[in-house]
Amino acid sequence: MSQPLRLGIAGLGTVGIGVLRIIRKHADLLAARTGREIVISALCARDRSKDRGVPLDRYGWESDPVALATRDDVDVFVELIGGDEGPAKVAVEAALATGKDVVTANKALLAIHGQSLAELAEKHGRALRYEAAVAGGIPVIKALTEGLVGNQFSRVMGVMNGSCNYILTRMETSGLSYAEIFAEADGLGYLEADPQLDVGGIDAAHKLAILTSLAFGTQVNFDGIVLEGIERISIDDITAAADMGYKIKLLGVAQKTGRGIEQRMQPCLVPDTSPLGQLDGGTNMVVIEGDSIGQVVLRGPGAGEGPTASAVMADVCDIARGMRGPVFGLPANQLAPAAPASSSPPAPYYLRMALDDKPGALAKVAKVLGEAGVSIDRMRQYGHQDTSAPVLIVTHKTTPEALAAALEAMAGTNVVTGSPVALRIEAV
Amino acid sequence: MSQPLRLGIAGLGTVGIGVLRIIRKHADLLAARTGREIVISALCARDRSKDRGVPLDRYGWESDPVALATRDDVDVFVELIGGDEGPAKVAVEAALATGKDVVTANKALLAIHGQSLAELAEKHGRALRYEAAVAGGIPVIKALTEGLVGNQFSRVMGVMNGSCNYILTRMETSGLSYAEIFAEADGLGYLEADPQLDVGGIDAAHKLAILTSLAFGTQVNFDGIVLEGIERISIDDITAAADMGYKIKLLGVAQKTGRGIEQRMQPCLVPDTSPLGQLDGGTNMVVIEGDSIGQVVLRGPGAGEGPTASAVMADVCDIARGMRGPVFGLPANQLAPAAPASSSPPAPYYLRMALDDKPGALAKVAKVLGEAGVSIDRMRQYGHQDTSAPVLIVTHKTTPEALAAALEAMAGTNVVTGSPVALRIEAV
Repeated sequence: MSQPLRLGIAGLGTVGIGVLRIIRKHADLLAARTGREIVISALCARDRSKDRGVPLDRYGWESDPVALATRDDVDVFVELIGGDEGPAKVAVEAALATGKDVVTANKALLAIHGQSLAELAEKHGRALRYEAAVAGGIPVIKALTEGLVGNQFSRVMGVMNGSCNYILTRMETSGLSYAEIFAEADGLGYLEADPQLDVGGIDAAHKLAILTSLAFGTQVNFDGIVLEGIERISIDDITAAADMGYKIKLLGVAQKTGRGIEQRMQPCLVPDTSPLGQLDGGTNMVVIEGDSIGQVVLRGPGAGEGPTASAVMADVCDIARGMRGPVFGLPANQLAPAAPASSSPPAPYYLRMALDDKPGALAKVAKVLGEAGVSIDRMRQYGHQDTSAPVLIVTHKTTPEALAAALEAMAGTNVVTGSPVALRIEAV
Repeated sequence: MSQPLRLGIAGLGTVGIGVLRIIRKHADLLAARTGREIVISALCARDRSKDRGVPLDRYGWESDPVALATRDDVDVFVELIGGDEGPAKVAVEAALATGKDVVTANKALLAIHGQSLAELAEKHGRALRYEAAVAGGIPVIKALTEGLVGNQFSRVMGVMNGSCNYILTRMETSGLSYAEIFAEADGLGYLEADPQLDVGGIDAAHKLAILTSLAFGTQVNFDGIVLEGIERISIDDITAAADMGYKIKLLGVAQKTGRGIEQRMQPCLVPDTSPLGQLDGGTNMVVIEGDSIGQVVLRGPGAGEGPTASAVMADVCDIARGMRGPVFGLPANQLAPAAPASSSPPAPYYLRMALDDKPGALAKVAKVLGEAGVSIDRMRQYGHQDTSAPVLIVTHKTTPEALAAALEAMAGTNVVTGSPVALRIEAV
């Protein structure tokens, strides 16, 4: 058997303790599977004295993550601190520069600084691995870079924020408003300290940026993502979409178009019979499409102690086995800049509006849609409520530009109360 | 860049040609991703002159697979001949003994001779890889051995024969009989030359045997599988199951019990709202359960040129990158014998029977069930047809032994026409 693989673990929150638990519980199993003993040299967290439910006194301790990252008795620096700046970044850089391999669960760090970190890791010939950063326990990084390596990818999609999917699912099952369910989720501790990371789509967009790079051989480009959260999704839209056979999901889509790489993280409608449509609650799902495979769907827990720690251990064990590939699937210097697509490919859209109770109102709306080149696939007008009537329209495939023109013209008709809601319908 | 990796491909059916196509189409992409050029030294098939839609004259040719497997200019022998005996086995053994790595899509070979081949491969320090052998393009071998390596697995389940799932789905949507849909599938070329491999569950059981070994660290034990095909599934059962909220699937289940490793490949009921229940048509699905991950579900195409070739290329690229682990996740000499479980864990069962139109008939059935310790969760009696009435029963969890006793006693009541149908309901 080879030398033991010695870890330094920085960050003893849920995930860090989960990793510790697996290593303690499955020491023999891991050694048998990897051919090496996996041991912990030292730990680092803010407060050593805090009771974390696991005895820590057998391990070394550092109060400074950089000191841990550069210890002589650490082969792999496991960064579970989080955050795209500050101690996590400094310590990861120190570890790589000192010739350590790095495993991290830090999606923000990779999404913002992935390119420079990949260059640093490859310059020093070290591994920088992050299976836990995307979709928690689902082995999606490995699927893209190894299991489906023979494919040219065309599209990668995913529901990758369990909190948002929980909120949308709960709104549907309860009929309660966004604000009510948001408060419920917050009360249950399902949201980040800064809930914008969740409901604003930022956390999910970090993950999407990483998947895009892996799928399309491009530099991580978080700023290139068209980003919209779930805050404007109303219970009316969830109900109306269900009526038309759809679910609303915060869906990340990365797609190769003739005009660059498109990255979108936004609420979309998907058919309620599709795997994405059937994904309820906090579970994550990633859909990968490639020229040979067709479509593969991966579903599993996107967060939590066990699942995230499971993904961290996958990386640790790969390193134990000597696997050490480029950080983003291709050598960092071969990754192309990810020029954002100038426009989204055409798609059907869902429109919901309130029409004034006037003769000819619907005709006016249909006319401006037609004039903008947006054709109607399905339309439903419901009974009048006070002085207006809810109208749902599913369009045929149209460009976002044509749709925007139609919506602008619609405002000029003076028969629409307020602003229409427009949501993309993603073919899945 | 390292030396090119040189392949010898034996078998030029659908999958072989698919592999050839990927290597030709994506030569640059594969080289960039693996850091090595992947080239084909020579091919082998029965008939060199056959038009396969791809020009083959640039490659060397062998008419004997063993000659191909042992050529000096072959680093990796790609076995796509099939069959658990004969040329495939002989050539794989010859390749390993000559120090070649081997990639195969041959589930039968691995399920029957996996242990001896693993020993041979590890003795010679070679890779023997077979991602394509289980669930086609879905990277499930990699998920079990790498992506989820930190888990102790409790259960692995899967719908792994697309033809059977197609037949069951089509029966449901068409309302036609098993015989009619079997003929349809056969006419469409969906079935193996020996359809028993499909509808008898043998092909799926080969795959299950491999997954069991990987999940539980045991020697492949195909003979330890409790095996039953879909031939006895009637349209009446499909309709009745749907009525009760279930779908019928040919489901493989490998489970660790207190009394050994249980392996079953048999028609089961699963909730129609579960991912397995929602799997229609020829798609495959594998569900993996582990102590840290909870549950992960992988869904994708289980057969066909592109998907299977995609999986073969995953193995080839892993070898190109120098990955070379034990064949079944643990060194072959550490794999434990897979003693078959002496009994299945308790489960709810679905029973369908025709009750004679006699007073007290239902009471008699309820009585024998109760006396055998089988309690009823839900029961439905339908209107009489001629002289008997269809009755559906969903039991609470019960042991297979108690159920068998109840069924035997039921036969003695003289109120049941014919034999009751009993199918296990798998919790998913």
